[in-house]
Amino acid sequence: MSVDFEVMWRTLQPIGRMASGGYRRSPYATAERECLAWFEEQAAARGLRLEYDGNGNVVAWWEPEGATGEAIVTGSHLDSVTEGGAFDGPLGVVSGLAAVDELRSRGVTPTRPLGVSVFVEEEGSRFGIACLGSRLATGALSPDKAALLLDRDGVSLQEAMGGADALGRAAWLDRVGTFVELHVEQGRDLVHRDRAVAVASGIWPHGRYRFDFTGEANHAGTTRMEDRHDPMQTYAMTALAAAKQARLAGQRATFGRIEAVPNGTNAVPSRVTAWLDARAESEAALADLIAGIERQGGERAERDGTRLVLTPESVSPEVTFDIPLAHRLAKVLDDAPIIPTQAGHDAGVLADAGIPTAMLFVRNPTGVSHAPDEHAEIADCLAGVQALADVLAELVA
Amino acid sequence: MSVDFEVMWRTLQPIGRMASGGYRRSPYATAERECLAWFEEQAAARGLRLEYDGNGNVVAWWEPEGATGEAIVTGSHLDSVTEGGAFDGPLGVVSGLAAVDELRSRGVTPTRPLGVSVFVEEEGSRFGIACLGSRLATGALSPDKAALLLDRDGVSLQEAMGGADALGRAAWLDRVGTFVELHVEQGRDLVHRDRAVAVASGIWPHGRYRFDFTGEANHAGTTRMEDRHDPMQTYAMTALAAAKQARLAGQRATFGRIEAVPNGTNAVPSRVTAWLDARAESEAALADLIAGIERQGGERAERDGTRLVLTPESVSPEVTFDIPLAHRLAKVLDDAPIIPTQAGHDAGVLADAGIPTAMLFVRNPTGVSHAPDEHAEIADCLAGVQALADVLAELVA
Repeated sequence: MSVDFEVMWRTLQPIGRMASGGYRRSPYATAERECLAWFEEQAAARGLRLEYDGNGNVVAWWEPEGATGEAIVTGSHLDSVTEGGAFDGPLGVVSGLAAVDELRSRGVTPTRPLGVSVFVEEEGSRFGIACLGSRLATGALSPDKAALLLDRDGVSLQEAMGGADALGRAAWLDRVGTFVELHVEQGRDLVHRDRAVAVASGIWPHGRYRFDFTGEANHAGTTRMEDRHDPMQTYAMTALAAAKQARLAGQRATFGRIEAVPNGTNAVPSRVTAWLDARAESEAALADLIAGIERQGGERAERDGTRLVLTPESVSPEVTFDIPLAHRLAKVLDDAPIIPTQAGHDAGVLADAGIPTAMLFVRNPTGVSHAPDEHAEIADCLAGVQALADVLAELVA
Repeated sequence: MSVDFEVMWRTLQPIGRMASGGYRRSPYATAERECLAWFEEQAAARGLRLEYDGNGNVVAWWEPEGATGEAIVTGSHLDSVTEGGAFDGPLGVVSGLAAVDELRSRGVTPTRPLGVSVFVEEEGSRFGIACLGSRLATGALSPDKAALLLDRDGVSLQEAMGGADALGRAAWLDRVGTFVELHVEQGRDLVHRDRAVAVASGIWPHGRYRFDFTGEANHAGTTRMEDRHDPMQTYAMTALAAAKQARLAGQRATFGRIEAVPNGTNAVPSRVTAWLDARAESEAALADLIAGIERQGGERAERDGTRLVLTPESVSPEVTFDIPLAHRLAKVLDDAPIIPTQAGHDAGVLADAGIPTAMLFVRNPTGVSHAPDEHAEIADCLAGVQALADVLAELVA
């Protein structure tokens, strides 16, 4: 088994890798299509039947004689963010194929159809909507809305897909009784717990909020510090307060995007706009986090003689995976820890659509995600394949 | 006299004013050329002889019979920053013409030539070099270097000037024995002192410094706060520390320009670059200020696991105006306060070139500069004209 995983990983690894070491596997573009062709070859080599839907998602079915009833599907995605890492997405797909090999070598014959799926545009890097393929397949995103999407070059989704496909709800999803996604961990919880594999409890609610700090433009040389109304100072205090509050509560608060006006070296800015990405364990906790940051920013604004206006741009509710299922799988995996994730996944979209869904995470020693340093040791990858095979064996029995 | 000032001010005021209330008098463009034509008309109406140099500067000479020896010149500029105020530059030019009227109404006949000058591109808003006209006239900037300057649209300085002029040292400057520039105050020192007019002691040294904060790009959702190396946090702390240090020492430190990479809402940035504008009362104090900010930023970088690299982009030395002259003029003006300025001026360029130079400041109730709220009450403008007339009478006697 270990040979199969490593061979697959080695053949997939160079596709879309840039000189920097980062990956660029943009949906429907050369590298990602090459990854998909790789998947089709692997499926064919295993005698798996490929089923495509009109959204660009594909499932490789293992349907032994006598396998009936609701299907068990595992899978992830092959696209990456720009300058992303090698593991986010591909680890789940390769592990799914390797788990099929492992089940076969164990002599397991599924009593139900078993599928390995690839969802398209999970990262939202090209058309701006994360989990685009799974959202279309479940009906969470309407084909009419998707038809209006354009990438940065003005290419529509259907143009990118090469034309004829029919977007919309996917028939194959109706056959799925349980979905399991294996994913590299995007943090270091498993490092701290000294475990290779975990089961997911759910996805934290999260939101994006625009903070507009307005003050008074002025001369950077002549205006005394005590005569200023400098929105950059209010912003700086708010950014520190947000991080501290999130750290103390074990939550997330990130100011990664900022614009200053007029953005001149010798000018006290009139306005600073910054975007907060915030995530917490529950919707109430997220609301508290935002309220706390807004209060601290507002107090500082009062002292600075500036103004803070907060606008929520998008807020995603909490996703809870199937709790009895999670406990059942954790038990199969020697009482694996059950931990939340703070990132969106196709599994979350399927769970929202009412499909019993679980996720497995594989330890990431750097904790880095969406960047070249994202990593998993080969031993942990193999432990992930064993865990996925154990879980699938339990579900298809 | 008061009628002349107010009429002049009213006729000049609409030129280049935008709907926002801010001014756009970009050098060699329509509005600024209209201001210059206005100046030429005013000079002609007073029988003053216009002398142009090859750099776009102009002097209107009052040369009564028998006036000989070194000239006394007063003046300022007519260009503005984008979205600037009405007073920065024009107040000194209009006051110079009004002071000529006042001297005439007092029956003063200068024993020396008296000039009112207009320097071009003082703000550096078009070609990026502040005091361009005076720097060319004194030889501080070589014509060869100036010939390479391009504006944002790729237009060269000589193209902007309309072709034929010969850049370089201006002969008329050799005649100048003393130069006096009147300017609206760019702060509220005179408000605090409850005085309408001050004499300048000098221009603080100042510098621009690029701060590169580098950290580690990461997922804004999944990366625990304690696992991050977020350069935005290091920046925020440094921006607060810089302002606090400058405030406690009565100096200036401004972060008005910032760029984050990749500048995405859901990404911990890998890099934040911010530009510091810093000014202090002496070169030693400025060096101490920068060292203090760098030390505090560096300490925070160590805690954040980030890195700070500081690069000075330009450092301008201190300008000291003619001290005995400043005291002599302050005495003429009922012991006017003698205060420093933190902004560059053509007067500073002339002082650096060895010309005995003084500046007068007129109270600005808002303290705002380079923005529409920049202001001076008409009574204070008239006090400024009287003060300038008193000073010129003293110098031409």
